[in-house]
Amino acid sequence: MDNRSSKSGKSLSINGINYATCCSGTKYKNRDDLLLIVLDSGSHICGCFTLSTMPSAPVVWSKKNIKRASNLKQKSILLVNAGNANAFTGEDGILACEEKALALASIFKCDKKNIFFASTGVIGEKLPYRRIIQHLNYLKENLSSSGLKAASNAILTTDLKPKSYASKFKINNELFTVSGFAKGSGMIFPNMATMLAFIFTDFAIDRDTLSSFTKKAVSESFNRISVDGDTSTSDSVFVSTTNKKTLKITKDEKPAALNAFYEEIKKAMVDLAKKIVMDGEGARKFIEITVKNANNVVRAKEICFSIANSLLVKTAIAGEDANWGRIVMAIGKTRINLETEKIKIYMQDFLLCKDGQGVETVDNDKLSRALKKKKVSIVVDLGEGLKEFTAWTSDLTEDYIKINADYRS
Amino acid sequence: MDNRSSKSGKSLSINGINYATCCSGTKYKNRDDLLLIVLDSGSHICGCFTLSTMPSAPVVWSKKNIKRASNLKQKSILLVNAGNANAFTGEDGILACEEKALALASIFKCDKKNIFFASTGVIGEKLPYRRIIQHLNYLKENLSSSGLKAASNAILTTDLKPKSYASKFKINNELFTVSGFAKGSGMIFPNMATMLAFIFTDFAIDRDTLSSFTKKAVSESFNRISVDGDTSTSDSVFVSTTNKKTLKITKDEKPAALNAFYEEIKKAMVDLAKKIVMDGEGARKFIEITVKNANNVVRAKEICFSIANSLLVKTAIAGEDANWGRIVMAIGKTRINLETEKIKIYMQDFLLCKDGQGVETVDNDKLSRALKKKKVSIVVDLGEGLKEFTAWTSDLTEDYIKINADYRS
Repeated sequence: MDNRSSKSGKSLSINGINYATCCSGTKYKNRDDLLLIVLDSGSHICGCFTLSTMPSAPVVWSKKNIKRASNLKQKSILLVNAGNANAFTGEDGILACEEKALALASIFKCDKKNIFFASTGVIGEKLPYRRIIQHLNYLKENLSSSGLKAASNAILTTDLKPKSYASKFKINNELFTVSGFAKGSGMIFPNMATMLAFIFTDFAIDRDTLSSFTKKAVSESFNRISVDGDTSTSDSVFVSTTNKKTLKITKDEKPAALNAFYEEIKKAMVDLAKKIVMDGEGARKFIEITVKNANNVVRAKEICFSIANSLLVKTAIAGEDANWGRIVMAIGKTRINLETEKIKIYMQDFLLCKDGQGVETVDNDKLSRALKKKKVSIVVDLGEGLKEFTAWTSDLTEDYIKINADYRS
Repeated sequence: MDNRSSKSGKSLSINGINYATCCSGTKYKNRDDLLLIVLDSGSHICGCFTLSTMPSAPVVWSKKNIKRASNLKQKSILLVNAGNANAFTGEDGILACEEKALALASIFKCDKKNIFFASTGVIGEKLPYRRIIQHLNYLKENLSSSGLKAASNAILTTDLKPKSYASKFKINNELFTVSGFAKGSGMIFPNMATMLAFIFTDFAIDRDTLSSFTKKAVSESFNRISVDGDTSTSDSVFVSTTNKKTLKITKDEKPAALNAFYEEIKKAMVDLAKKIVMDGEGARKFIEITVKNANNVVRAKEICFSIANSLLVKTAIAGEDANWGRIVMAIGKTRINLETEKIKIYMQDFLLCKDGQGVETVDNDKLSRALKKKKVSIVVDLGEGLKEFTAWTSDLTEDYIKINADYRS
């Protein structure tokens, strides 16, 4: 993970982005659960949303607005609440979004299409939106550019820790900033998790390019993680730029500059994605699974996630047991035809099986010590081609059950 | 579950089927882990096996022999061991089968094609087959027709309880018997679980019909259960008949008689399948999930198993929480397009959501009491058609993790 991500606070704030948080009283007591983010006029907001066919009302709302360009002469608004997902709430859910948008449009003198929502929490409970609206003027009065830390705290649900990222980067000797935060620790599987993530920058870029960078970076970060194989109704990633810092470059220099910018966005997302996995409900280990030398990425990905989502693999890692037979099981259950004899399986760089059987010369004491580490790597070499895929997951412990058997009540 | 299944012992033994068990010393101490079943000449053995692309050596062996008809003039043999799956053991695994078959063929004077194997336990460890062979003469000396109970015990691994079934049934006033036993409590998902099941009868039937009945009954029983969504390398269901009791009927009476027999075979499998779920690792609740009024069975099945395999649904049931929002999540993650407003979700017969939102008039005290029951029913009405699918699963508790983090070591 990126060391720079530990830096945050005022020095890394981005001109033109202001945050405010408060306790709305909709779900949690004694903690902030409502977050307002206001971006100066001229900003772009792009996004990527859950593929669930039961999307929450805020996902439906934001998806629609992402498709239409914001009015650049006006401010753009993000309003986020934790504790209630406003999902499967029927017409009341849509009404909640409409009413919040009306209030925000009036307060900030902007079109409704400049307003975006994200909600996370229990599915199926009606959102007490009037209580939220009551707090909007307070939030407006308390906007501050240094509110990143408070913002990252206000969006949490079962998360144990806030997850934020902030970094300066140089392109052609000009200094830019990227910062962001995320939440998520359960209902986490590929097509984004019960996770919300917000990434901000000042790098000026056209909206279409930022939008395609967003999708690509999500596919290389948040869509590579899994905690429990469950996909939420509320997953949303927003990437915004204030467009305040324009790079003065020639047309020829542009592709390299854009590429450098893409790498920074991706780095932020990978960092936050890994932090979500490390904060997986009950997780004690971070597991990186790579399936390499596959004929194509689709095969590699399917096998990779079959291993990442296997309860038996995840509990074996929790037990610090090099039970590679369960990895074989997870490969086999994909029903992808493979040449068994060509498969090699490694854990913590120890070769555990090849030629269709276990390796007998493994130093079990050394392996056992290696498995006590917090980070566990699993590599499966299919020996059939040149493609690979990497996924990140966590182990599965008793605490996952405890957290989820008790969450709602 | 069928009450008759609790009956067992001598009175329900089937003439022409003999069992013997012993402790082979290959894995467990102080308990039997090796089972020999000998069927009289004239018997048929049919089977159904895991769809894993990493099948164990005994699965490969038995699958091949199931395709060829046994030599009816000779005895047929089933040899089962627990504690070692003989899976992903390369050429040694095949050799183990070959050597065991050679010894059995010599002892029982039969062709190798009359010999079938099943192994369950740890994947990737070499089977100490010589130790098994050393015990074969002892097993032969101790064969008994009343060994059903001992047999059902000898094949267990992490199971807490043996699972057996025995029943008499009448067709056209003639009395027949069906009996059987199974093992399995983890690595349990549709295409058969880490489960072995053995069903026996005396009903005379041609091999092709018995074989098609076997496949059909498996699809309506063992392929409807899930404990953890993991599919084993070793799943095997064997259905055998001694062919000793021939029904004297006219050609016209045959279809009805065969249908009656099929129902008995299915009843035995459903009973054993439910017992496997109830003995699911750490399970405290039996969950029946029905998706009804679907356009077709494929949609119903996919949604049904998405719910059955959802960790969040299973932990909610463990917590006795009517968190139907997680059922919505599990439906949505299939990415099957549905008309949200038409969906109705019931738990314990309480209607919890309709018209795209929660029902507010639910009596939560009554519902809460209903969820304390050991059997939990979930019904999802898609309101789009006439097809349905039912699956059986268990809740997910801390004990699942404990059992599986420690299993191998």
